[in-house]
Amino acid sequence: MTVKKMKTSSFKTIGLIGKPQHKKASQTMRECYAFLKEKGFKVIVDERVRRDVEIKGMLFDNVIGIGRLCDLAIVIGGDGNMLGAARILARDDIAVIGVNRGNLGFLTDLSPDNFKAPLLQVLEGNYQSEERFLLDVEIYSHGQLKSANSAVNEAILHPAKIAKMIEFAIYVDDNFMINQRSDGIIISTPTGSTAYSLSAGGPILTPKLNVLSLLSMYPHTLNSRPIVIDADSNICIEISQSNDIEMQVSCDSHVNLSVLSGDRVLIRKTKHSLKLVHPEHYSYFHVLQKKLGWGNKLY
Amino acid sequence: MTVKKMKTSSFKTIGLIGKPQHKKASQTMRECYAFLKEKGFKVIVDERVRRDVEIKGMLFDNVIGIGRLCDLAIVIGGDGNMLGAARILARDDIAVIGVNRGNLGFLTDLSPDNFKAPLLQVLEGNYQSEERFLLDVEIYSHGQLKSANSAVNEAILHPAKIAKMIEFAIYVDDNFMINQRSDGIIISTPTGSTAYSLSAGGPILTPKLNVLSLLSMYPHTLNSRPIVIDADSNICIEISQSNDIEMQVSCDSHVNLSVLSGDRVLIRKTKHSLKLVHPEHYSYFHVLQKKLGWGNKLY
Amino acid sequence: MTVKKMKTSSFKTIGLIGKPQHKKASQTMRECYAFLKEKGFKVIVDERVRRDVEIKGMLFDNVIGIGRLCDLAIVIGGDGNMLGAARILARDDIAVIGVNRGNLGFLTDLSPDNFKAPLLQVLEGNYQSEERFLLDVEIYSHGQLKSANSAVNEAILHPAKIAKMIEFAIYVDDNFMINQRSDGIIISTPTGSTAYSLSAGGPILTPKLNVLSLLSMYPHTLNSRPIVIDADSNICIEISQSNDIEMQVSCDSHVNLSVLSGDRVLIRKTKHSLKLVHPEHYSYFHVLQKKLGWGNKLY
Amino acid sequence: MTVKKMKTSSFKTIGLIGKPQHKKASQTMRECYAFLKEKGFKVIVDERVRRDVEIKGMLFDNVIGIGRLCDLAIVIGGDGNMLGAARILARDDIAVIGVNRGNLGFLTDLSPDNFKAPLLQVLEGNYQSEERFLLDVEIYSHGQLKSANSAVNEAILHPAKIAKMIEFAIYVDDNFMINQRSDGIIISTPTGSTAYSLSAGGPILTPKLNVLSLLSMYPHTLNSRPIVIDADSNICIEISQSNDIEMQVSCDSHVNLSVLSGDRVLIRKTKHSLKLVHPEHYSYFHVLQKKLGWGNKLY
Repeated sequence: MTVKKMKTSSFKTIGLIGKPQHKKASQTMRECYAFLKEKGFKVIVDERVRRDVEIKGMLFDNVIGIGRLCDLAIVIGGDGNMLGAARILARDDIAVIGVNRGNLGFLTDLSPDNFKAPLLQVLEGNYQSEERFLLDVEIYSHGQLKSANSAVNEAILHPAKIAKMIEFAIYVDDNFMINQRSDGIIISTPTGSTAYSLSAGGPILTPKLNVLSLLSMYPHTLNSRPIVIDADSNICIEISQSNDIEMQVSCDSHVNLSVLSGDRVLIRKTKHSLKLVHPEHYSYFHVLQKKLGWGNKLY
Repeated sequence: MTVKKMKTSSFKTIGLIGKPQHKKASQTMRECYAFLKEKGFKVIVDERVRRDVEIKGMLFDNVIGIGRLCDLAIVIGGDGNMLGAARILARDDIAVIGVNRGNLGFLTDLSPDNFKAPLLQVLEGNYQSEERFLLDVEIYSHGQLKSANSAVNEAILHPAKIAKMIEFAIYVDDNFMINQRSDGIIISTPTGSTAYSLSAGGPILTPKLNVLSLLSMYPHTLNSRPIVIDADSNICIEISQSNDIEMQVSCDSHVNLSVLSGDRVLIRKTKHSLKLVHPEHYSYFHVLQKKLGWGNKLY
Repeated sequence: MTVKKMKTSSFKTIGLIGKPQHKKASQTMRECYAFLKEKGFKVIVDERVRRDVEIKGMLFDNVIGIGRLCDLAIVIGGDGNMLGAARILARDDIAVIGVNRGNLGFLTDLSPDNFKAPLLQVLEGNYQSEERFLLDVEIYSHGQLKSANSAVNEAILHPAKIAKMIEFAIYVDDNFMINQRSDGIIISTPTGSTAYSLSAGGPILTPKLNVLSLLSMYPHTLNSRPIVIDADSNICIEISQSNDIEMQVSCDSHVNLSVLSGDRVLIRKTKHSLKLVHPEHYSYFHVLQKKLGWGNKLY
Repeated sequence: MTVKKMKTSSFKTIGLIGKPQHKKASQTMRECYAFLKEKGFKVIVDERVRRDVEIKGMLFDNVIGIGRLCDLAIVIGGDGNMLGAARILARDDIAVIGVNRGNLGFLTDLSPDNFKAPLLQVLEGNYQSEERFLLDVEIYSHGQLKSANSAVNEAILHPAKIAKMIEFAIYVDDNFMINQRSDGIIISTPTGSTAYSLSAGGPILTPKLNVLSLLSMYPHTLNSRPIVIDADSNICIEISQSNDIEMQVSCDSHVNLSVLSGDRVLIRKTKHSLKLVHPEHYSYFHVLQKKLGWGNKLY
């Protein structure tokens, strides 16, 4: 993680992105709005929460507009809201920080009860900045691009309905890696390595690494292991003709792209990346300690 | 893995490093020596195998000398012999390739039964070249350097005698990561990720990655998971004062450095790296397929 | 496994259960039929394969009829055919043995290329016999039994569509065990412990044990572990009201029972069990060696 | 777990077993002694703590004597003290209960701060009782018994010094199971399944099961999995002649029996078992919830 300490802030226009119809998130957004206005910033609010927070003189725009017009976006919600915003904001040159409504999040490090002091640090230019890359996912059928989307955490190939074995081959930069029969495969970024991939037995990848992990889901062999590869690799999954069921590639468990036998799934790093900022004393390991209970004794 | 295809070989003087008192390795070395002399190369042979292979006119030197005088070293033996040679040869600007006596090795890709054609490719400059970094391990007691060594595969902190819990804290670049009670910890390079670390449940790290994995051995918690960090990190393990037994840091399971309560273990990437060369059509994934049985069906 | 060696066979009427529209299975069935008739047994053939194998004088019945009328059923097909037949045949006092079309199966130990000698042993009363229990699965909605089925290998609670977290509580003999958020749970018999449960990281349970294993699927905690309990336990899974998606309990990946928020899933051992017979020298560990590759060396 | 509720206590003479030179354990023992004397019980105290707790009129004996003379032993200390006492007390017909000095233990369910009410329940005959079997371990060299001991939790075969691969074959009831190269093997009782075996990835076995688990330590294959077998099995481990290092079998990590190449290790259930008693409302699952954090949410 690169620590950038600037003496004066480069942030002038700030976007507030929220969680619609969520009382506590709305309350935090109102506090945050007042705080920013008091400090003299121009603020644009996520139009999806207009009915929850509108006061006189408030400016609204959608997330795409916020990405284009603002220097910093503050996402007030859970990691899910952050993932949704991140997929859009990564395209623009905007810094992003999160205030978590609930527990400490992996992506949203500010606490709603105590966000002002650390946020002020950030606004004054005393922050850490890091780039989190995303995955571009493209589905090809008979050589034609059928659908595409992007993922901050992970892309998962799996059957569309119940847990059922599928068969596919993986190529990395045109080199054959493996033929596999399993319930699917998880391709995770470092950001996603503490999410679904972790539940499935994948390694934790520290955020600044330019790597991906590939992880089989319930493989029909005993010799499958997680493998970590260069994030600049082109991954191609060839779906075997032998599969007789519909499949999907799920991006961040939000968007599902339909996949059929014989299709090819291409996965590579996006050109743009998400610019996350953290308060000066942020530590990734501290988040692991808090979220994963690192330090608890068993016996 | 960088593929360097040169039209003319830069190799002039070639070292042969062997496995003492091993009939089949000696036989392969004799064949290899004759082959190289026939092609007009200057050859220097590992003096430890002098009694096994000496013929008239053969030049001998130790591995240090081979590293200094040769452009290419051919290690004829198992991955163990390669590890031993690599720890010395990494200090010099010498390319290294292995002929395995036995099964295909992760580090020794040439087969003793069929090494001439691929070796000729390499000698003619048609090869892939990759850098494998090593770990520098230093033990400090009361602030004084007590002992040091290096590792190609992994450094393992563990009790000197039987499996018994030890307690220690890990810092990465001066940031506290975790306090741990376990049987020890494995810090593995990508090269070592298919060795002991794999048996212990660690992820496979493809060779070109500049990363390390940290893996607890039988931790006394249920929330420990492998973590992959930047190989340019400085790792410091502080051994708790509460340990009442002798410990060791084992480098590649060959060299054991004694560690006591209160000591500090520093681990970082070496400045030099091992220059491995492979035949033109070498594929790391192919080695995984052969060695790990990737492709076998369970049911 | 109880070894029962009888000097004279108790088998008089034998059922042949097949795999419809499968050339090789049909060929093996014809050989088996001729062999049995030659030895003087009365034979009843699975009516689903009538079109594949019928010759003059052949008697046919469905699997239920075979269960009622025969002393021994020979299932010619894969483990899937065996599971399907077993769910029906377990209700009757009939011995069952399998001839596998393909590789050695966990449940079908006779090879199609060499079934006559071991089958003759069995027919002469020189066999091992073991009881494999099944699971009764019942789904209750508002206290009313909604659906039920049975499983030889395992019952799996999971979302009906894509991998998505569900929330539920498990009680064992009315004692609260755990609240869980995961992709589901696998409850496996010893017979199923080498099937899907093994892919998911579950322990192997030797066949004669009267135990079950419970195994979370991608749990949203790091402290979940497989747990083995008495097979005479009553397991109750209370589906949380908070789930907003349809779920299923899948029996042997064949039958899916629909489950909704607030439902209760009861799982207990069936009263009846499957009577598997094996040739005299059958060894379960030998099957593990063959099927799982126990004995293969890694490095 | 069998629940035995008796209206009147069968306990008359009670032994107190302690943790020498441990202030808090001594304090709890004094409180416990006074409590029992007040209730009119005859009490015999562990002579190893005489100097820590002696008051006028106190009776002392060693743990063997306590086992012979008392109806109930109360162990005041950690699970380690309980294991040590249990190995002796299992030979006699004596009930055992533990008061933990520290956190809730898997074996010691009474809290030092609140032991009187639940202990009174037990003394009045309102308790649950369960039998925990032990393992007999015997080492044979050239057919001669060389050494023997017993284990409550687990027997571990491993190298005597540093982690180094050993080679051995396992037979169960004279049936060959597996040849293995690994750092060793853990054979665990249900009681031990939440101890070292759990750290090594073994399944949890509920206490009343008559089963054992076998678990390889860092096996040099990818296809090794935990296996659960009948506790009435005879396990024989044949140590390969190829091992050139000293090995040990460790019983409960307390007693180490030396093992050499060519030796045979026999492991079987002891004839006697430990009679643990628990307060009326004890729940094993509740202990799992407390000790393993079952119920904690990850994200």
